[in-house]
Amino acid sequence: MSEQPGGPPPFTADDFAQRLRRAAETAGRAGLDGLLVTPGPDLLYLTGYAPVAITERITMLVVPADGEPRLLVPKLERPDAEAAPAGSNLGIVDWTDGSDPYAAAASLLGRDGRYAISDSAWAMHLLGLQDHVPGASYVSMTTALPMLRAIKDADEIDRLAAAGAAADLAYEEIVKVQFAGRSENDVGAELARLLRRFGHSQVDFTVVGSGPNGANPHHEIGPRIIEEGDMVVLDFGGLKDGYGSDTTRTVHVGEPTAKEREVHGVVRRAQQAAFEAVRPGVECQEIDRVARAVITGAGYGEYFIHRVGHGIGLTTHEPPYMVEGETQILEPGMCFSIEPGIYLPGQFGVRIEDIVTVVPDGGRRLNQTPHRMQIVH
Amino acid sequence: MSEQPGGPPPFTADDFAQRLRRAAETAGRAGLDGLLVTPGPDLLYLTGYAPVAITERITMLVVPADGEPRLLVPKLERPDAEAAPAGSNLGIVDWTDGSDPYAAAASLLGRDGRYAISDSAWAMHLLGLQDHVPGASYVSMTTALPMLRAIKDADEIDRLAAAGAAADLAYEEIVKVQFAGRSENDVGAELARLLRRFGHSQVDFTVVGSGPNGANPHHEIGPRIIEEGDMVVLDFGGLKDGYGSDTTRTVHVGEPTAKEREVHGVVRRAQQAAFEAVRPGVECQEIDRVARAVITGAGYGEYFIHRVGHGIGLTTHEPPYMVEGETQILEPGMCFSIEPGIYLPGQFGVRIEDIVTVVPDGGRRLNQTPHRMQIVH
Repeated sequence: MSEQPGGPPPFTADDFAQRLRRAAETAGRAGLDGLLVTPGPDLLYLTGYAPVAITERITMLVVPADGEPRLLVPKLERPDAEAAPAGSNLGIVDWTDGSDPYAAAASLLGRDGRYAISDSAWAMHLLGLQDHVPGASYVSMTTALPMLRAIKDADEIDRLAAAGAAADLAYEEIVKVQFAGRSENDVGAELARLLRRFGHSQVDFTVVGSGPNGANPHHEIGPRIIEEGDMVVLDFGGLKDGYGSDTTRTVHVGEPTAKEREVHGVVRRAQQAAFEAVRPGVECQEIDRVARAVITGAGYGEYFIHRVGHGIGLTTHEPPYMVEGETQILEPGMCFSIEPGIYLPGQFGVRIEDIVTVVPDGGRRLNQTPHRMQIVH
Repeated sequence: MSEQPGGPPPFTADDFAQRLRRAAETAGRAGLDGLLVTPGPDLLYLTGYAPVAITERITMLVVPADGEPRLLVPKLERPDAEAAPAGSNLGIVDWTDGSDPYAAAASLLGRDGRYAISDSAWAMHLLGLQDHVPGASYVSMTTALPMLRAIKDADEIDRLAAAGAAADLAYEEIVKVQFAGRSENDVGAELARLLRRFGHSQVDFTVVGSGPNGANPHHEIGPRIIEEGDMVVLDFGGLKDGYGSDTTRTVHVGEPTAKEREVHGVVRRAQQAAFEAVRPGVECQEIDRVARAVITGAGYGEYFIHRVGHGIGLTTHEPPYMVEGETQILEPGMCFSIEPGIYLPGQFGVRIEDIVTVVPDGGRRLNQTPHRMQIVH
């Protein structure tokens, strides 16, 4: 979990036992025989275990709907697995280099079972299971149990709020620095240092999209020298005490044009409208639609080329997704981004993003810095 | 490719075109209709393209045995894909959030095609393809074309040799520092700094396994304070100019016991014997067997609990694997680790590892530091 000194107390074996029980029950209610959980956020969530590296050697937790969870590990990683927070709750089964790991895995599965498997499990491992247990069937975790990790408990929301607050502090500092005449790379490195200074153990991205680069929503950073008159998209985040931050603000170097003000204002209104639409019982796609309606109404619909948001927790991208077609309803404790944007090719981009959690009577922002177009120098 | 300033010239569009042609031919000869290549080392190798992040949004290169390669990308990542070194050689097809990416992917596949898919492709994506193209069949890249990236060309071997030389420099410096009284974490951090100082852009692991921790072959680092009399396994590596290093030496704090000398000597002889067995035409498993025979002959067979080696290139773990059961024959240009070890639970561990490349008349080490048990302080 990469806890920081002075951070929140780590989750306990009891926390993991409870999560494992709930996962098994949820699997049973979904008509599954079990869950196949490979290294990554699902395994971290259910056991606290993160192998040193995710490699071609299969590690897989089998959580049957009925019965005890078992963890298959490469023999040489057994001591690490036993030392994991939930290690004592799990029957650990190991396999040795040179033996067939899928035969070992197959012995943990039912011959005609129906299983959900972690989204990011390696295709190689899935093919090995399909080969050895041809009667079983598989669906992705997000298809079968998209909401396995989606509803955060109070301790998790505290961590997400702390990560958001740290990102806010980094933003408050970065707008004071010099932009004009410096490269995006340089400003990005400073932003990364700030995130670490305010407690992030890992920085996942520091987008500095200046001028026309801001019109590519996945531009990260580059050698471009930021100029007076540039709009600059700042999108940054990472992990603090194991939970994610993800914030975007769009700033301007010197005085903006009327067009720049207008586009920024449209995005700001879209973000606000989508936020106000958040409440339990609303479908995820509705949040996207509300933001999109504002932008389309202003004539910029074709320039808003991505969904409006994604869940966040142990990772910075996870269900629930705020996207057309997602009919999952919002429930208290869900945490996700709301990040509409307008991207004018060759000109500039604007995006504004907060993390929001669903509370009984609406939404609560986990970022508090103002949305206005901050003027930087 | 994260080239360093002053590093080797980047691979060109022609290099990638050649690799793509060779991959298509190899696929055809293997009876495949094509390759499905997802972000990671396969995609980097064939196109030079590495998306900013590997996420739930599918990116997939389809390399048909006959026909032109096409790259499916999320629409918002299209500019990045177009800017990749091989971008101009590829037909780029995009999909938009809210549409079904697997329908888009299906349109690039034959209805009853036989495809190899990147090992680390997400299971979620494979399940999406299986669902949309039920008549097609899939095998993992390592099963179908394990040697796709295994034979390195001269430019690649130069990069691996440079990474190895940088790791050697880091080792020569780390043995001069104080060990006794410092934590493994502290020594590991220093080792990481040294790897970066000598040109690594990324440090993947710095194992400092002191005393009994050395007996867990995948122990990385921890708070344990290194003591006088400890054996210490140092296993470190990462990427320099896009290619991997991976070296292990076992050092000792102060004078070793006779038992420690004996075990170290056995591992050293096993490493040497395995190295001398390297030549074109030998099966990979033979390299493992030769090392294992030395260790078993000395009575420590049960304490050598992993395969003797793995390939290395754009990643630090890839085919070919030097493991029992692997009948692939060695060919000039293959590069892999030889890393026998003995792990005595509760006592100490010893491992010695070099990267080796196959040359016409044998093997050539890409690490040059001595194997003797270096005494540190």
